[in-house]
Amino acid sequence: MSSGSQYLTGDPSAIAEFIEKFDTFLFDCDGVLWSGSQSFEGTAETLEMLRNKGKRLVFVSNNSTKSREEYKKKFDSMNINCNVEEIFGSSYSAAIYISRKLRLSPPKNKVYVLGVAGIETELDSESIPHVGGTDESLRREMTGDDYEKIASGEMLDPDVGIVLTGLDFHVNYLKISLGMAYLRRGAMFLATNIDTTLPSNKTLFPGAGATSAPLIAASGKEPLALGKPSQAMMDAIEGKFKLDRKRTCMVGDRLNTDIQFGIEGGLGGTLLVLTGVSTKEDFLGGGKEVVPMAYVDKLADLASK
Amino acid sequence: MSSGSQYLTGDPSAIAEFIEKFDTFLFDCDGVLWSGSQSFEGTAETLEMLRNKGKRLVFVSNNSTKSREEYKKKFDSMNINCNVEEIFGSSYSAAIYISRKLRLSPPKNKVYVLGVAGIETELDSESIPHVGGTDESLRREMTGDDYEKIASGEMLDPDVGIVLTGLDFHVNYLKISLGMAYLRRGAMFLATNIDTTLPSNKTLFPGAGATSAPLIAASGKEPLALGKPSQAMMDAIEGKFKLDRKRTCMVGDRLNTDIQFGIEGGLGGTLLVLTGVSTKEDFLGGGKEVVPMAYVDKLADLASK
Repeated sequence: MSSGSQYLTGDPSAIAEFIEKFDTFLFDCDGVLWSGSQSFEGTAETLEMLRNKGKRLVFVSNNSTKSREEYKKKFDSMNINCNVEEIFGSSYSAAIYISRKLRLSPPKNKVYVLGVAGIETELDSESIPHVGGTDESLRREMTGDDYEKIASGEMLDPDVGIVLTGLDFHVNYLKISLGMAYLRRGAMFLATNIDTTLPSNKTLFPGAGATSAPLIAASGKEPLALGKPSQAMMDAIEGKFKLDRKRTCMVGDRLNTDIQFGIEGGLGGTLLVLTGVSTKEDFLGGGKEVVPMAYVDKLADLASK
Repeated sequence: MSSGSQYLTGDPSAIAEFIEKFDTFLFDCDGVLWSGSQSFEGTAETLEMLRNKGKRLVFVSNNSTKSREEYKKKFDSMNINCNVEEIFGSSYSAAIYISRKLRLSPPKNKVYVLGVAGIETELDSESIPHVGGTDESLRREMTGDDYEKIASGEMLDPDVGIVLTGLDFHVNYLKISLGMAYLRRGAMFLATNIDTTLPSNKTLFPGAGATSAPLIAASGKEPLALGKPSQAMMDAIEGKFKLDRKRTCMVGDRLNTDIQFGIEGGLGGTLLVLTGVSTKEDFLGGGKEVVPMAYVDKLADLASK
């Protein structure tokens, strides 16, 4: 075990001993429970096994495209048992941060959203006003008139004090230009998360860190990210679930978000699954920055007899 | 002159002496001759004054959206005298680089373009095959079918060996996903230019470096840029115009592209105009990395009596 990471697959006694150490398991979703719309075999059974052992499960996702309610539907569609209150997404994390930490005085707390409906739903849940986002009137080409009205400020909402970016499947030049103008005017820059890739269909597609990249480049500013591995998200999770960090294990597929998130948060354990982004080569062999406490080929290996 | 940069505005004898040093003037366009679609006052007259003194003019632009022919029309619309052969854009520079330096064997020299018509026209002028770009069938939302066909490779052109990005006013998630897939498959990554901002309507909008940023973030790769300050562009200009670098002056509005381009290229002089991106504070006061030989408030100051 020169790598410092324990390989659990196919070792039932090591698995039992590992599970015994924790009361709470925090799960990343994409790349761990499923890839895109395809559930991994044995996901539901493995989670059920953990519930039967009295473990508390929390689903921590950097995916900003879905609200908690929408996320619940995704679990339902794959017949994976889950409660809305067990879900903690980066859009919810951002909404909590804006409403409870920033506390900007209305109406100057309005948010310009570069992202999809999941962000808007969570902002609504915290009664935070917003523009942009899914606004259909912005899904079009930029016109000469737009250049003028953005330059003059006529097209900008005077109350916007925050620009919040997440994964935007409908990113376009007009929406980037508006976000850039708000940032140049002094708006605070937040991101639900900055994962550059999105695992889907057994490969990778552009993530929130990619669709937000034009704004970062054009403004020369870096957003404060509210998703993993930001400890602002860990603090919010701890506040909501009152967990004992030493008896908590983070399970994920990415070293630089999930595993780092668990290590920096001082959790008792971290478990990497090899069904997503990171590979064994990324952490085995010594000299690597982020090493999980243990790893398995796939989540279902935890339930194998 | 503690800054090392000579201020020429309002000093006719210094101006005359400066102009006398050079046979050729390389001009950046956006932010120097005009901003967006508005010509600066006195641009045409100043260029005419230089022509009357026997100077050769070359218009060197990182703007990748226009071919040389289209660029000529922009000059015409503003009544600025100019010849197509005097124009050297970053799309032309990229096409030259691909056809004359890379020399990939057909059909594997096909280019996936993330950009607009100017790039395609210049690739055509060098007989380089291309896909993407202005293809109307890609100006739409991404579908579930697209995810599958990109993941399986079915939607990818087997001959694409190069991804070339420029300023794309029609950037979208589908086009980014395709570019990312080609890069993951091993395509070479080129950019016409990586300016993060585009001066227009007296303010700044997202530039090529912004609309290319999603691909850079998602792929984790940096493109080779063929626009200023890349010396690949200077070499191409020198090859075409047979200029004497010591008798050549670069005129521009950006320190980190135009002025750096001239300094790294060993030109006899560099002249900054303050009608674009860079400000006096960016180079005055000592300790600054890139300092122009001289500067004027605006180009027309060269022609003032």
